[in-house]
Amino acid sequence: MRVKQMDIKSGMSALEIIEEMAGAGVFIAGRLARAVHVLSEMISSEDVTVFFGAAGALVPAGLGRIIAEMIYDGFIDVIVTTGANITHDLIEAFGETHVKGIKGEDEKLRENGINRIFDSYLSDNAFVVLEKRIQEILTDIPVERRKEGIPVYELLKEIGLRLNYKHSFVKAAAEADVPIFCPAITDSILGLQMWLFSQRNALKLDVLEDLHKIISIAYESKKAGAFILGGGVPKNHILQAMLLTGRGFDYAVQITLDRPELGGLSGATLSEAKSWGKIAKNAVTVDVIADVTITLPIIFSALKETLERK
Amino acid sequence: MRVKQMDIKSGMSALEIIEEMAGAGVFIAGRLARAVHVLSEMISSEDVTVFFGAAGALVPAGLGRIIAEMIYDGFIDVIVTTGANITHDLIEAFGETHVKGIKGEDEKLRENGINRIFDSYLSDNAFVVLEKRIQEILTDIPVERRKEGIPVYELLKEIGLRLNYKHSFVKAAAEADVPIFCPAITDSILGLQMWLFSQRNALKLDVLEDLHKIISIAYESKKAGAFILGGGVPKNHILQAMLLTGRGFDYAVQITLDRPELGGLSGATLSEAKSWGKIAKNAVTVDVIADVTITLPIIFSALKETLERK
Amino acid sequence: MRVKQMDIKSGMSALEIIEEMAGAGVFIAGRLARAVHVLSEMISSEDVTVFFGAAGALVPAGLGRIIAEMIYDGFIDVIVTTGANITHDLIEAFGETHVKGIKGEDEKLRENGINRIFDSYLSDNAFVVLEKRIQEILTDIPVERRKEGIPVYELLKEIGLRLNYKHSFVKAAAEADVPIFCPAITDSILGLQMWLFSQRNALKLDVLEDLHKIISIAYESKKAGAFILGGGVPKNHILQAMLLTGRGFDYAVQITLDRPELGGLSGATLSEAKSWGKIAKNAVTVDVIADVTITLPIIFSALKETLERK
Amino acid sequence: MRVKQMDIKSGMSALEIIEEMAGAGVFIAGRLARAVHVLSEMISSEDVTVFFGAAGALVPAGLGRIIAEMIYDGFIDVIVTTGANITHDLIEAFGETHVKGIKGEDEKLRENGINRIFDSYLSDNAFVVLEKRIQEILTDIPVERRKEGIPVYELLKEIGLRLNYKHSFVKAAAEADVPIFCPAITDSILGLQMWLFSQRNALKLDVLEDLHKIISIAYESKKAGAFILGGGVPKNHILQAMLLTGRGFDYAVQITLDRPELGGLSGATLSEAKSWGKIAKNAVTVDVIADVTITLPIIFSALKETLERK
Repeated sequence: MRVKQMDIKSGMSALEIIEEMAGAGVFIAGRLARAVHVLSEMISSEDVTVFFGAAGALVPAGLGRIIAEMIYDGFIDVIVTTGANITHDLIEAFGETHVKGIKGEDEKLRENGINRIFDSYLSDNAFVVLEKRIQEILTDIPVERRKEGIPVYELLKEIGLRLNYKHSFVKAAAEADVPIFCPAITDSILGLQMWLFSQRNALKLDVLEDLHKIISIAYESKKAGAFILGGGVPKNHILQAMLLTGRGFDYAVQITLDRPELGGLSGATLSEAKSWGKIAKNAVTVDVIADVTITLPIIFSALKETLERK
Repeated sequence: MRVKQMDIKSGMSALEIIEEMAGAGVFIAGRLARAVHVLSEMISSEDVTVFFGAAGALVPAGLGRIIAEMIYDGFIDVIVTTGANITHDLIEAFGETHVKGIKGEDEKLRENGINRIFDSYLSDNAFVVLEKRIQEILTDIPVERRKEGIPVYELLKEIGLRLNYKHSFVKAAAEADVPIFCPAITDSILGLQMWLFSQRNALKLDVLEDLHKIISIAYESKKAGAFILGGGVPKNHILQAMLLTGRGFDYAVQITLDRPELGGLSGATLSEAKSWGKIAKNAVTVDVIADVTITLPIIFSALKETLERK
Repeated sequence: MRVKQMDIKSGMSALEIIEEMAGAGVFIAGRLARAVHVLSEMISSEDVTVFFGAAGALVPAGLGRIIAEMIYDGFIDVIVTTGANITHDLIEAFGETHVKGIKGEDEKLRENGINRIFDSYLSDNAFVVLEKRIQEILTDIPVERRKEGIPVYELLKEIGLRLNYKHSFVKAAAEADVPIFCPAITDSILGLQMWLFSQRNALKLDVLEDLHKIISIAYESKKAGAFILGGGVPKNHILQAMLLTGRGFDYAVQITLDRPELGGLSGATLSEAKSWGKIAKNAVTVDVIADVTITLPIIFSALKETLERK
Repeated sequence: MRVKQMDIKSGMSALEIIEEMAGAGVFIAGRLARAVHVLSEMISSEDVTVFFGAAGALVPAGLGRIIAEMIYDGFIDVIVTTGANITHDLIEAFGETHVKGIKGEDEKLRENGINRIFDSYLSDNAFVVLEKRIQEILTDIPVERRKEGIPVYELLKEIGLRLNYKHSFVKAAAEADVPIFCPAITDSILGLQMWLFSQRNALKLDVLEDLHKIISIAYESKKAGAFILGGGVPKNHILQAMLLTGRGFDYAVQITLDRPELGGLSGATLSEAKSWGKIAKNAVTVDVIADVTITLPIIFSALKETLERK
């Protein structure tokens, strides 16, 4: 089949550009186009439970609202993410903001109480606010719920229900009853806050119960799809969720710039997961070798337009 | 300044998405947005001579037509590229096409006469056609022009004027009188064809005259802008063109996934070129760490819409 | 200072080559040489508590024994790693081995019960053995220890003490009383085994107690050094351990090919961690942009030779 | 076959460490070990013509002397490199040196007349010296040799014969009669010097004659091996040299961190070159995904020790 030279015009929508990329059909643009196609198929099918994984620094990058929108739009059924993504989401939910345009050496930033995430910045005050509000929220959760061991996904839902910022994905998930799994919650500032709270209050986390829940969702799904941004724990945790079901994911799309030859799971091809049975033999998979901050907005806009057409 | 969470909607144009990325303003999406901004400024200014550099495999990727369009739209004044990009452009101009969807081991492909460029393919026949047509064209160029030494940019113009395919950037450049510099022309199949021709016909290349020409253009420019896809010779050649003028580029945008820490020029930051004087001290530069096949179509569509608005 | 051209000879030891790299002193080789220098300083100082972090797939790569040796040699005081690294270590400790040289499509591998980690392979049987042995070991741990909530580092020590394979880093750590922290233990096959066990037996994990322990070690350290392979949870968890102490790491070396511009923590420079106070303002840091499988053996051999000289 | 856990000891030679990596045999370390094995086979065989390609910034990195040593040791028969590598080699041959340890913004460096190559630096004076000496040398070359068109490899040999610095690879090559091909010579400061010279003196370059020469060497070789550092023109030019012979390279080793999915030739696998017939169907190839500055010294030391053992 012919590689069509892309015919790009002014004013084209993301979907129209994606369609030109599909016409070419090769290299990374070809994969991006296939990703939109596969995602639209998995999202529009009633039978597919969609697991969404996100590593990286989505909220400091300005992508947090898109995650919230994906939940409101019903695109995703399960979230697996890092404590960092949740922490940054909460900070914005509490009215603090990430800022840009600051310059200076990291040592100077520290002296000025500014924390850097590449070229996105956060003041120490954001963490003061986080501490105040999260300690209040944790206190507000009935002690019976937390003293015997609460799974993290339930704790995050309790937190989400107490938020008032509609662009927070933690709130969106709580309202839509989309569970957020965070296997490494203690590996984050939110986790440090939980530990701090536990020093004077009853709080135990029951992480095996989290595992029980995600495995149950996997078991009960008719079909399963994975949409994974970046690698790390979110990627592995989604893929392993199907391991005990005896069947693998039916669809999988990942976006990452990590590379397979180094042997780590973050850069592993989705095909490799077929050898483990985490992804089904005949599943449709797309590995998009790309940065998330430029591809997610394109994908989301194109996906919405595709789904409206159906 | 606040990192605004991107507000992405269905049906948004490339430019509208770029504007949301500009609102966030950080990470790679922030840079992509700044690239569109800087490119629109350099292209819309009458005083700026725009040097466009392209390594990689643009035509096999389906991006060749965009290059031709950029020429027709008057976006670029000078091209520096690889012999491979020109070779693939000519092959399409001669009616042959790159194809996709072929599978099989590389050894098998060879047995079947199929040449692979990642997941874009070209049959041996394309090179048979190339040989026939390019030998005819070279013969057609008056012998006086080629026996004493012809600069490559003039030879490429002669070739371009003899093409009949409007999506060929070699033809577009010839018609628009945009010179194409190809410092490593002998490092390509087109170069091999020139050598073959030279074995039975008069043909000498005057590569120092090419250098003379690009330096002259640099000298005569009021202001200079660089738009560079990938690294290699095209990047270096554009940057060095300003070296003897005593002033550097006023604008520069590069798109590459190569990284600076390895020390090679392909991954060097544009800032590094300031230490050499290739880029002016106060120039506006943007390093977009990204793949070209997904960013160029977005940039081109957004650029056109921006320029129409002006 | 002059960049000395490296003078490399036959039979040179790793340290001698590192010294030539130090003489050149630039690019990645220069950083590798500085890494050896900084590591030898932090390891040889009595006052420094060394935190070692490891993501990736060390045991399938053949690097597991080096980790065990580093423990036996007293190079490291605290380990933070992934559940995957522990799982693969246990599999080798139970007599199963990773194999190489297998070819075939991932779908076929699955049919043959073979799991792929890039070009290292593991049979399904390895997991059968793992299940049998780990369930036995978990049963063997006194029920009082596990019913009320056991921190993961203690559980891993209990497991390590029951192993009989001296090249296992889990055993080495248990014997040397080096705690292994694994914040995302449930995100691994070992974690799935713990969940399985918990379905019929008393087992609760107390992950906040793990956090308590690592923070305490950080508090009690006179000085602190970090040696981090890869990104992910191990990197973040080590860096955040110092966050509450009010002082940062005094030394830090990381080896990763992830890049900072994407904004994720895995690729973040160590300098960025200074803005957070995780690393001290005047700390010595080295970012080695490299693969671990080729650099760790070189570093380890050169480190040993350096330390013997002292 | 079992992945052996590497057993690394103090004082081990590069070759001994490579042998441990070969025992593991997987991931990048496994490939590095295979590279040493394949290189030693191709170098020790009398029948194999070895083509060595080098992009990047070898001399500023301190690797120039290793290239000279490889020539003196008879490891390589043909060199293809960039004008930049030759320029930096000449600068050191003329007594100027690259320096390290300079800090400051690129704009400030320019004001101080310092040119940056990542973290290696060169003063403007080095280029003044280069100009003086190279203009003298060009003048010294008999006018008959240069007025009709001299191939670049012959011009570089003339230059090399006039150098007095034994660690210069340009001199080493001239003395050993190893031709240096530089298809993009005009894309370098040395090329600018040639152009400058040509403005007042007779100098024409006959680049088609260069192509003739490298193709002749390829034709006349019994067997052919390629050892390629980095991508760009050197990689492509070596691979295309065999294209017209009707048989491909029998051995090929490349070291690069560029990745194949982007579609450019620099990152293409060596296997892809088999589909073109540039590498023979049954050739032994090794793609080492690594940085050159850390791997080349290791490889060179291990190679020498291996060859001494034979």
